[in-house]
Amino acid sequence: MMEHITSPKNPKILAWRSLKERKGRLAHGSFLVEGDRMVKEALSSGFPVRALLIRGDRVRDFDPGPLPESLPCCQLSDQAFAAVSDTKTPQGVAAVLGMQPISPRGSRLLALDCVQDPGNVGTILRTADAAGLDGILLSPDCADIFAPKVLRATMGSIFRVGLSFPENLADQLNALREEGFEILSSQLDGTPFYDRPDPGEKWVLVIGNEGNGVSLPVQAAATQRLRLPMRGGAESLNAAVAAGIMMYELMKGN
Amino acid sequence: MMEHITSPKNPKILAWRSLKERKGRLAHGSFLVEGDRMVKEALSSGFPVRALLIRGDRVRDFDPGPLPESLPCCQLSDQAFAAVSDTKTPQGVAAVLGMQPISPRGSRLLALDCVQDPGNVGTILRTADAAGLDGILLSPDCADIFAPKVLRATMGSIFRVGLSFPENLADQLNALREEGFEILSSQLDGTPFYDRPDPGEKWVLVIGNEGNGVSLPVQAAATQRLRLPMRGGAESLNAAVAAGIMMYELMKGN
Repeated sequence: MMEHITSPKNPKILAWRSLKERKGRLAHGSFLVEGDRMVKEALSSGFPVRALLIRGDRVRDFDPGPLPESLPCCQLSDQAFAAVSDTKTPQGVAAVLGMQPISPRGSRLLALDCVQDPGNVGTILRTADAAGLDGILLSPDCADIFAPKVLRATMGSIFRVGLSFPENLADQLNALREEGFEILSSQLDGTPFYDRPDPGEKWVLVIGNEGNGVSLPVQAAATQRLRLPMRGGAESLNAAVAAGIMMYELMKGN
Repeated sequence: MMEHITSPKNPKILAWRSLKERKGRLAHGSFLVEGDRMVKEALSSGFPVRALLIRGDRVRDFDPGPLPESLPCCQLSDQAFAAVSDTKTPQGVAAVLGMQPISPRGSRLLALDCVQDPGNVGTILRTADAAGLDGILLSPDCADIFAPKVLRATMGSIFRVGLSFPENLADQLNALREEGFEILSSQLDGTPFYDRPDPGEKWVLVIGNEGNGVSLPVQAAATQRLRLPMRGGAESLNAAVAAGIMMYELMKGN
């Protein structure tokens, strides 16, 4: 049984539309993903699915596979779908999901300390997934991973990578250090990355803010401070590129 | 002797303003860079400097160092500067430069085959500079490196990395192969990157289009086709991240 919604001012549409903003996501405990691929990945992920939204012209051709009977499906008019979509040319399928990410399980982790550019955060999640890391810790001042721009940049990795949101990243890293983790802080005044001692099987790679680098309390939790070599006249690398080079190098033996 | 320009409709302002678009840059053979750091790097680069533009409030505090006497310096009103600037909050200094890039010299090269996202092209230039590559070849369908968004993303590397614009990239790569270069094509159906044979001292790493990868004529010129390992469920990496991982790995022994 599919509910039909035609008015962009329908209360449900207004609620889903509010998920574009952080305030709305926090108020509803939900976020919204768009597009065939993202929606299919969402349906087979561990995230609770609260609603499936399909624009009228996509009802016949979009095949999400078998769905739980209790899942609310809504058919939206063009106008109603355009209201909830964050893209210029919406694909016409979307899913509303509960914000209940997968917890990281394992011992090869990434921590983001105030990485603020949404594109960087999304690209880093995608790269961590491809490199095979076990999970990511995000400090509270990172770009919100449930924002539409970040979700798009993850290319679906949001559904596959374990995520954790410690209230205080430095405290969390100190606790992991007590458990025997090496804490590898990426910073421009560190020692050469390629000369690092072997971090073993339990480590957290820390990537800092685009302008200011890793914060002092997090630096204090580090067991190694490392920098990639810079030749030429370049003073730094893009945060997502630096994270990618280091993650792939650290995972190489695995 | 500094020329004062107050009207945003002054013919010089209109000409410089047109440099935001490719058409204008080609018509004038010039491009424009903004900001203290970019302008200082431009002045000490090999690019011909055609004019230095300073907003009234910056005349006293901006110190570009010793300048050639023949260099035209212009003091611009707030309105006139805003007209030529591509940013929301301009720093108030800019330089107009001739499009006469440094040619690549050396034997460790990068080739971009239809990389179309301006942010990716700029970030890749910045990373190539930091990794210490000798130069970059760009196919004609790449994002224009003299566009304001690309220039910003390079963080000044545009002035330090050798650049070449072959009319036909595949022909150029075939010629390099004849000279003994290994042509390393990055593609998702390649063999594992970390198992590659040693490419020696003369090589070109090729990065393809974000959606379609390396074009068929360029693939045909390759001596090795390589892919980075993908774990998790990720199908691909961002082009700038993949380029960064491969460039740093290839340059590691150097």
